Amino acid sequence: MAQSPTHPRPSTSTTPVAQPDAYATVRHTTESLCRGLAVEDYVVQTCDDVSPAKWHLAHTSWFFERFILAELVPGYAAVCPMYDYLFNSYYNGAGPQHCRPRRGLLSRPTVEQVYDYRHLIDERMHALIDHPPPGVDETLAARLTLGLNHEQQHQELLVTDLKHVFSSNPLLPAYPNAPPHDSPEGTSAGKSIRNQKSEINLPGGLDDIGHPATPTATPIFVYDNETPRHRVYLAPFRIAARPVTNGEYLAFVADAGYERHELWLSLAWDVVQREQWRMPLYWYRDGDRWMHYTLAGPCEIDPDEPVAHVSYFEADAYARWADARLPTEAEWEVACRDAPLAGNLLELARFHPEPMRDDTTAATHPQRCFGDVWEWTQSSYAPYPGYRAPAGTLGEYNAKFMCNQYVLRGGSCATPQTHLRPTYRNFFPPGTRWQFTGLRLAWDG
Amino acid sequence: MAQSPTHPRPSTSTTPVAQPDAYATVRHTTESLCRGLAVEDYVVQTCDDVSPAKWHLAHTSWFFERFILAELVPGYAAVCPMYDYLFNSYYNGAGPQHCRPRRGLLSRPTVEQVYDYRHLIDERMHALIDHPPPGVDETLAARLTLGLNHEQQHQELLVTDLKHVFSSNPLLPAYPNAPPHDSPEGTSAGKSIRNQKSEINLPGGLDDIGHPATPTATPIFVYDNETPRHRVYLAPFRIAARPVTNGEYLAFVADAGYERHELWLSLAWDVVQREQWRMPLYWYRDGDRWMHYTLAGPCEIDPDEPVAHVSYFEADAYARWADARLPTEAEWEVACRDAPLAGNLLELARFHPEPMRDDTTAATHPQRCFGDVWEWTQSSYAPYPGYRAPAGTLGEYNAKFMCNQYVLRGGSCATPQTHLRPTYRNFFPPGTRWQFTGLRLAWDG
Amino acid sequence: MAQSPTHPRPSTSTTPVAQPDAYATVRHTTESLCRGLAVEDYVVQTCDDVSPAKWHLAHTSWFFERFILAELVPGYAAVCPMYDYLFNSYYNGAGPQHCRPRRGLLSRPTVEQVYDYRHLIDERMHALIDHPPPGVDETLAARLTLGLNHEQQHQELLVTDLKHVFSSNPLLPAYPNAPPHDSPEGTSAGKSIRNQKSEINLPGGLDDIGHPATPTATPIFVYDNETPRHRVYLAPFRIAARPVTNGEYLAFVADAGYERHELWLSLAWDVVQREQWRMPLYWYRDGDRWMHYTLAGPCEIDPDEPVAHVSYFEADAYARWADARLPTEAEWEVACRDAPLAGNLLELARFHPEPMRDDTTAATHPQRCFGDVWEWTQSSYAPYPGYRAPAGTLGEYNAKFMCNQYVLRGGSCATPQTHLRPTYRNFFPPGTRWQFTGLRLAWDG
Amino acid sequence: MAQSPTHPRPSTSTTPVAQPDAYATVRHTTESLCRGLAVEDYVVQTCDDVSPAKWHLAHTSWFFERFILAELVPGYAAVCPMYDYLFNSYYNGAGPQHCRPRRGLLSRPTVEQVYDYRHLIDERMHALIDHPPPGVDETLAARLTLGLNHEQQHQELLVTDLKHVFSSNPLLPAYPNAPPHDSPEGTSAGKSIRNQKSEINLPGGLDDIGHPATPTATPIFVYDNETPRHRVYLAPFRIAARPVTNGEYLAFVADAGYERHELWLSLAWDVVQREQWRMPLYWYRDGDRWMHYTLAGPCEIDPDEPVAHVSYFEADAYARWADARLPTEAEWEVACRDAPLAGNLLELARFHPEPMRDDTTAATHPQRCFGDVWEWTQSSYAPYPGYRAPAGTLGEYNAKFMCNQYVLRGGSCATPQTHLRPTYRNFFPPGTRWQFTGLRLAWDG
Repeated sequence: MAQSPTHPRPSTSTTPVAQPDAYATVRHTTESLCRGLAVEDYVVQTCDDVSPAKWHLAHTSWFFERFILAELVPGYAAVCPMYDYLFNSYYNGAGPQHCRPRRGLLSRPTVEQVYDYRHLIDERMHALIDHPPPGVDETLAARLTLGLNHEQQHQELLVTDLKHVFSSNPLLPAYPNAPPHDSPEGTSAGKSIRNQKSEINLPGGLDDIGHPATPTATPIFVYDNETPRHRVYLAPFRIAARPVTNGEYLAFVADAGYERHELWLSLAWDVVQREQWRMPLYWYRDGDRWMHYTLAGPCEIDPDEPVAHVSYFEADAYARWADARLPTEAEWEVACRDAPLAGNLLELARFHPEPMRDDTTAATHPQRCFGDVWEWTQSSYAPYPGYRAPAGTLGEYNAKFMCNQYVLRGGSCATPQTHLRPTYRNFFPPGTRWQFTGLRLAWDG
Repeated sequence: MAQSPTHPRPSTSTTPVAQPDAYATVRHTTESLCRGLAVEDYVVQTCDDVSPAKWHLAHTSWFFERFILAELVPGYAAVCPMYDYLFNSYYNGAGPQHCRPRRGLLSRPTVEQVYDYRHLIDERMHALIDHPPPGVDETLAARLTLGLNHEQQHQELLVTDLKHVFSSNPLLPAYPNAPPHDSPEGTSAGKSIRNQKSEINLPGGLDDIGHPATPTATPIFVYDNETPRHRVYLAPFRIAARPVTNGEYLAFVADAGYERHELWLSLAWDVVQREQWRMPLYWYRDGDRWMHYTLAGPCEIDPDEPVAHVSYFEADAYARWADARLPTEAEWEVACRDAPLAGNLLELARFHPEPMRDDTTAATHPQRCFGDVWEWTQSSYAPYPGYRAPAGTLGEYNAKFMCNQYVLRGGSCATPQTHLRPTYRNFFPPGTRWQFTGLRLAWDG
Repeated sequence: MAQSPTHPRPSTSTTPVAQPDAYATVRHTTESLCRGLAVEDYVVQTCDDVSPAKWHLAHTSWFFERFILAELVPGYAAVCPMYDYLFNSYYNGAGPQHCRPRRGLLSRPTVEQVYDYRHLIDERMHALIDHPPPGVDETLAARLTLGLNHEQQHQELLVTDLKHVFSSNPLLPAYPNAPPHDSPEGTSAGKSIRNQKSEINLPGGLDDIGHPATPTATPIFVYDNETPRHRVYLAPFRIAARPVTNGEYLAFVADAGYERHELWLSLAWDVVQREQWRMPLYWYRDGDRWMHYTLAGPCEIDPDEPVAHVSYFEADAYARWADARLPTEAEWEVACRDAPLAGNLLELARFHPEPMRDDTTAATHPQRCFGDVWEWTQSSYAPYPGYRAPAGTLGEYNAKFMCNQYVLRGGSCATPQTHLRPTYRNFFPPGTRWQFTGLRLAWDG
Repeated sequence: MAQSPTHPRPSTSTTPVAQPDAYATVRHTTESLCRGLAVEDYVVQTCDDVSPAKWHLAHTSWFFERFILAELVPGYAAVCPMYDYLFNSYYNGAGPQHCRPRRGLLSRPTVEQVYDYRHLIDERMHALIDHPPPGVDETLAARLTLGLNHEQQHQELLVTDLKHVFSSNPLLPAYPNAPPHDSPEGTSAGKSIRNQKSEINLPGGLDDIGHPATPTATPIFVYDNETPRHRVYLAPFRIAARPVTNGEYLAFVADAGYERHELWLSLAWDVVQREQWRMPLYWYRDGDRWMHYTLAGPCEIDPDEPVAHVSYFEADAYARWADARLPTEAEWEVACRDAPLAGNLLELARFHPEPMRDDTTAATHPQRCFGDVWEWTQSSYAPYPGYRAPAGTLGEYNAKFMCNQYVLRGGSCATPQTHLRPTYRNFFPPGTRWQFTGLRLAWDG
């Protein structure tokens, strides 16, 4: 992609979490994602799932204050007691919370006050990191790593939430940090990967998935939901060499995919009818052209990009139409665990999936496993065998959401590279579309 | 009231609409009401009835652009065509509108851009006023006066909407232009008017109400809904010398007024149950104390202030409890039309009802008819006999709302003095509480 | 109308309420309206406004039990204490009530049990009427008359609710007591009244409306809301000689009446959009033909029948389209009070408006004032000057509904003749369509 | 259980589906479940999940008409074309359907007409079975078996839906076919199993679950969703010897189980708060006593009965409180597949779980695997590896529901014995409570 050299790019330099300056790096990255925003852009909440940018900035700071400073600093006095109410997301163990759909109704604290809050927390965190009280080292290290990973998740949400905010505005403003679109010839030039098919055969059998680490151990960080590592039996299967593209998905749309009940789960068909879904989120027709809103503003759809902003419902229906299925998360992990953990991730600051121009017909391993789009699996988000939620309030982090959600694997153009692992489990309800979510097909072997 | 001399006060100098600099004065007053706001305060919409401050600033400008500049300036080019969609409130004749409950979802145009829009419209309006094209004088004068009166209505809404926005925030910030509360001794010192009663007797009979002017005539401006002047027959009646106070209303609350179905209209009782109303909007208990949120921040309730922020439902129930009734709008007009058009209005910049300390037991005419609080009447908002809505899009201004709303008379601490007349008809649905709405009792003669 | 002589007709012989056998007559009429119903037809509730037939049968009996037997018979024991909960409609003074929208969820008491209940109450009422305890005569007479008028109101509701129930069933069954449709030539033969216009001029001036009786006096019965008689001033006006017909209303529909926002009140336009109203309730298109469901089953629309099943919103929009307006209730009463209290009322057992074939162009008084359809007025339902709700639970009968409803005058093909008076005030919310509601035009004089 | 010998019992004699008179037997059983119902009891729908009894009677007949008669009888003419609309449940391939939540709004066809429809279909089915056209034998046999299994599922729904209908009536009527409650001493006498614990150890490892049959093969019937048989790997685990009892569940309630957020999934906690759940469906307090509605009417809770009418959410929360977990469906199948397929099933006509009085502390295999209550597993309802939905409209039977539902295993007191297999998969959304649903605990081995 020919990025304009003069375009402002948020700083997202590589951030091994365990390195000494990880705290400063991650915190700085979050702020750099807000570079160029108008004050108003920080305030608005365009649907229940979306949080205002200033809420993300404050909530991530509150996380450090509440779970590290307040617990590890003797006699700690909160910056503002009301923040425990305003910036707690869903930790019932930490007290009652301001109602999520009302986060966009708060003009105060102002953006400036939120930055002041962040910086005050940063000062106090640096002081604690530099001079921890005796006996807290292990807890501090574990909580610090968790807090930074937590903040990285909100970096992704910041980007996807701003995309929803901007796209909901009839003026369709661009995100100031997104590089401008390529020249028109860029999108249509060159050979297209359309109609290329390629599948990787895997033998199945007994295997182990999940991460062997215990969640609280350092220096390796994993989320509790990736553990314990456990044995699974897989039948032979095939998996696509790359994600499904816009061009392929357009063929499904053109084939009346959204009007044929037999392609859809019952719940999905209800939503398609009720919400009048006819294409992915952010797509629209402009005369004969298929357009979509991107963080760089509206543009024509590139058929070679991985399709994004489809729900589990749409991914499942597309797969059925294509005479395929979604992989299970175990299949995905087995197939992709050796892929390089690199790709179009947040650090590249492209904020949009990249087109795929390379011929993959001879691929022997899955490509594009990380970056561009999260890939829906057919697996319901459930505890791994032997899983126990951690004790205490932070046990609410993952465990209580293990119902009626589906696992996504990989990572998107809004996910920090340093946040990911092959065992990483993302999860959302099946109707979710505002994340960069796509799919990769699978078949029985 | 001992106002702090150093407190910033928005400029709201007297503004006879017909005077040459009326345009500049009214437009300046609107902006002065926003003095001291944070950018974020302009963006938020806390319920469907409330509009963001920046929307008010833009909509009032659009009104001049759409109904004056676009119609009277040959070859006029719109500042931004999308503003016709974003800033049209409810004029179906002027095209489709952005959905009202979504006004708070727009980060753009920014506050600065909205001010730029205002100032550009101001420039163009001044140019038009100074050098009108031939043949438009009459229309220009009429539309200009309407546009300024329209803007004055939005000045009141700006104040009441900001009160809702600030009060919805758990931090309970104060409006920067509200004078600070009096010292505590101020509120409780001095004699109280509690338990004083005084009624004015009126003989009824044949009378005329409504304004004799035709709505489009200059220089006297009236709204179409105040006309035509018409004959009514009234039975003898009595009307209270002053509005009901907080102290009187508290007696109703303390007498289980909100728990006794027999005091309430059927629709009202449904709302009381469903919304769990137990006191006026903005009131709350703090231990044993009755508090309310005011634009100067939270404070204890002064029993001598006119009660505000009660719905028609509550006004009606209170009157029934007090063995009285609400006046009809004809009764109100006949009783109050000779009262001086002065009082605690927007120009005083108090933004809150003033306590009543004077003995009214010997009053021979109603007091406090204008200012402090709008007074609910028992009259459904309906066309006067012989009324015809004006032709064209501006005919939508008042006429289409004549259903399921109730008339209020007088004016509040947020109403510009130059906007009012004794024949003025304000109207809201019976469950409305976010305006400065109170009541005055009446009885059969 | 050529009624089939073999068709079963419910007995609805004239019933002066004050005559000795009034109780038996009214009670019998109610049951005769249910003749021929399947058990299942008694159970179903197709929307919140509709009550199951068996609920009407039980509720009217409970009214006598609760307000007469329980209060006047010493030591009275209720037939079933739970009936106080199940069959109380809205009298908060008589205790809590089963939720109205859930009336159709009750399979028990069965229809047979409800009839047993009715007959037991009848026995007890006859015993009381024949041998009243000392000192109750006056109360008994007043309550008895009220109870019979109450039951007559439910006779009308029985018919309109069954119409809604049957029409909601895709099988479109007919009401067994409705006479079959005329032969096809009947509906189209003869001269049509289309395009005939005729208006009655009235001078206005000071007049008195409302009933002079006090509500509790015998032998004349009036509802409290018709009193007190009071003076009004009316400007000169004209009123149509007859109600608006289907044919006239079709011209409004054909002129895109439902698509032109400028014809509708703001609230009305919201409903038209949301509910996708395009014609009166029960109308539908069958190819090129305009059909409607009637209690005799589906049939083609007769252009000469008074239009029915239009809301206040539609009546108001039609009038605006026709360059007319709705009359006020005072105008209606003054214009129609001398019309004969006769017409196509419940006693004729036609259950449908009759076509108008007579030339009214020379009419000097309004025709068809009673019967066929209720006529919407522009008057909000409000207390007359000097009105006070009766004390006690029965004071809830009318007074608490005086908000956001509009007055209808006249009477419909489902109203008992003996129930009506020229001062009678019917009232419904402005969106109501399931009653036989039409309109008569008026104009300023 | 001491059943009253004179109590009417619906005939539910053993019905191996493949035997020649299976059709007559199953059809007869359905009708016998309606013995003694009042006509009104057939009509009512008390929530979206519940269907009226007459709808079940008609829908099961329509299933035979639509999928057998209409497809296999040359020139078949439908009994009533509208029934395709009224009695199609969810088969989009068979055309549009009457809206499910409106099934209770239909008074017609009457109950008698529905029985006539059933008997006409029975006649036609018997004629077809006796004299099938050439070449349809295999399809007829497969569809017939499917139709009978389908009808058996509706037998269970009939019972659970009637329980909801009766329980929603404040009169709390009993189901006429339920045997009366035991004498009071029966419920409390004898030793209680409270505080007895017993667990069965299972080694896990590689195993096969699911049914080896292909769904369309005869004579063995299985649902498509039970296939294909496939290999799984299980870690060692323990499973309880019997389901959780009312007494055990009461301890959870008494321990504030419904007020402790940390015990609940996030979605579950939302429901608990919103719906104010405090105990299982049908439970209530009567002073100090814990009561529940049963099909025999209200009675005190027996602590030794398996708890019923708990949702997945409650089952999961109880298990967490008990320091256990729910079994996966694979664990359940492996642990229980050798249990005798017998128990308190529909054929016993008890319509209520039976108390457990036997000591199970020395049990070596799970008890009570079939009958009494369905047992929630922790497994999301998903396709087995290699599963493909059958082609055509009947492919909608199971496959399209594989999202956001959870698998239950076993069978309840309302399930026909001949309908079950150890591989049988029942499934409902996690908030479902109106079925006889309970749980059995499991632990990691």
